[in-house]
Amino acid sequence: MKKPLILITNDDGITSKGIFELVSTVKDLGEIILVAPDSPQSGKGHAITVSETLRVKKNQIFKDIEAYECSGTPADCVKLAKHHILKGRRVDLVLSGINHGSNTSISVLYSGTMGAAIEAAIEGTPAIGFSLCDYNPKCNFSHGIPFIKKIVKEVLNKGLPKNTALNVNIPAISDEQIKGIKICRQTQARWKEDFDLRVDPYGRDYYWMVGNLINDDKGQDHDEWAIKNNYISMVPCHFDLTSYEAINHMNEDWNF
Amino acid sequence: MKKPLILITNDDGITSKGIFELVSTVKDLGEIILVAPDSPQSGKGHAITVSETLRVKKNQIFKDIEAYECSGTPADCVKLAKHHILKGRRVDLVLSGINHGSNTSISVLYSGTMGAAIEAAIEGTPAIGFSLCDYNPKCNFSHGIPFIKKIVKEVLNKGLPKNTALNVNIPAISDEQIKGIKICRQTQARWKEDFDLRVDPYGRDYYWMVGNLINDDKGQDHDEWAIKNNYISMVPCHFDLTSYEAINHMNEDWNF
Repeated sequence: MKKPLILITNDDGITSKGIFELVSTVKDLGEIILVAPDSPQSGKGHAITVSETLRVKKNQIFKDIEAYECSGTPADCVKLAKHHILKGRRVDLVLSGINHGSNTSISVLYSGTMGAAIEAAIEGTPAIGFSLCDYNPKCNFSHGIPFIKKIVKEVLNKGLPKNTALNVNIPAISDEQIKGIKICRQTQARWKEDFDLRVDPYGRDYYWMVGNLINDDKGQDHDEWAIKNNYISMVPCHFDLTSYEAINHMNEDWNF
Repeated sequence: MKKPLILITNDDGITSKGIFELVSTVKDLGEIILVAPDSPQSGKGHAITVSETLRVKKNQIFKDIEAYECSGTPADCVKLAKHHILKGRRVDLVLSGINHGSNTSISVLYSGTMGAAIEAAIEGTPAIGFSLCDYNPKCNFSHGIPFIKKIVKEVLNKGLPKNTALNVNIPAISDEQIKGIKICRQTQARWKEDFDLRVDPYGRDYYWMVGNLINDDKGQDHDEWAIKNNYISMVPCHFDLTSYEAINHMNEDWNF
């Protein structure tokens, strides 16, 4: 049987520990091609590069694996891989990550990891974004690896519902064993930002954006709940932003 | 009665024609504050700036209007305005645009204009993104202005359903009169990209991303249909990416 073609990307950049771990985890499950950003792209969401130029070059960092680094965003990497590097060759699965940091709840919208996965879903390719809820660049991924392998195998076997990408988050390592995998909805929470004002060596102000997730969602069926309770969370994501409920409401109530 | 506080931003940058037109159109409808990117941010989607610093400065370009330019993305502008510049003061409406170019269909995900509007909706503020389906930096907005004013007045009067931002697209000017406003769903179409390879003066390759919208959606209730038929399209957008249909399917079919 022909091996499935698996495209791997991420948002922390091609030299991050997370993408090495992902490649090692799945390299026996298919033919791997890697197209990843040449610099960190955290927070880039679904951004694409249209006002600037793109650069792509071969990267020799991974033994025996065809790898490219790209100056653009994670979503750019998926587009470049599918329409340029692979010249339209069919990709069976896109994997993004493993991200250094949580992408639960509303973070899915800001996440470059999930931007790449959703881009693949738009193009009709099953896709999974993996994130570890630990921002440490040297964080320990080992407890999540068997689960990642299991999820990838299941998706290669069964496919995914049409127009769907999975947002998988893994709790940071702890003394407690992971309880399993929960299929969840996106938590209804939001970030509250602060802007940390500093002064550069030339006397000019600048800011760092910092924030906290404000979670008033009392449910037990959402991804933040799963992570807090030491489950791996898995949210199937779509990309139709239409609020059909609002359409009904506006058709009744509005006057144009 | 106290005037509503209206925050205006965009993705083409603070010097673009579209934001001037938007300010002129609504300046009598409320107290205006403007926080917009200092450079073009097309295609930035919902990106935020976390790996780099942010700069903000006052801008005197608009007479009698408090205006700031920011080095970040449109979503950054909304966060900065709400949590820093306005120090938590309640904003009644966020307007983004008028964008130079279409943001129908799947473009809503790549759109910085809509990234800002959706950011506002996440924070509980009614928001509208306006786009003209004409990429010309000097394009003619005049035919859309009365409709923009009408929509803004309606939203100030009635509010919007919770967790909703409007994605409003206006056909490019033509000999035919605009037929009216259609409340629509997001067209199920996708972009197919090409990468235009060029060589820089130093002999190195680079690419420009170019693409076409591939639309196989036969419906007559979506935004591309409305624009093609000379209506203004209005899609109410939400930000819960959960596919509840896929959750049901996976709970039945999957084995973890």
